[in-house]
Amino acid sequence: MVISMYAPNVKVIDVGRKPLDDYVFDAIISFREGVNDIIIKGRGDGISRAVDLYWRLKDRLGDSIELVNVEIGSERFKGRKRSYIAIHVRRRY
Amino acid sequence: MVISMYAPNVKVIDVGRKPLDDYVFDAIISFREGVNDIIIKGRGDGISRAVDLYWRLKDRLGDSIELVNVEIGSERFKGRKRSYIAIHVRRRY
Repeated sequence: MVISMYAPNVKVIDVGRKPLDDYVFDAIISFREGVNDIIIKGRGDGISRAVDLYWRLKDRLGDSIELVNVEIGSERFKGRKRSYIAIHVRRRY
Repeated sequence: MVISMYAPNVKVIDVGRKPLDDYVFDAIISFREGVNDIIIKGRGDGISRAVDLYWRLKDRLGDSIELVNVEIGSERFKGRKRSYIAIHVRRRY
């Protein structure tokens, strides 16, 4: 897991099968509660959804967030390689 | 289209529904023919496949390629917004 690499006020959102707006809501609440950085993580088919989530969040929050970094990686999962994406977003105000 | 922004020896590979190895082959041939930079582009559900393609290429070519940049974007397509990814890979030797 990557979580431990990040500071306490960094939140990792793992994009799974819930409706995207659930994750958008989760992110907005987190920013309001004082989180500065969010890592949107998507694995396998979830990679496309992670990018969609980023843009949905960007549409909602506009210039109050900035894109810090986009990382693509590969990890072992159940004996197979699986790609992931980690989209690092920061609150600007 | 983004293609025109790139120099002549930059190749754009649009990841569609063909088997991934077809694109891997296409990329390897391009590098051999003198292309220095490849932009792997995936749209919508193709985003996940674009990342898979990058890693398949990386597994094949190892340190002879480097990841220059990963861009995520959003564009209009048939009246809807659609996310995309553009993975910029460079030949190192």
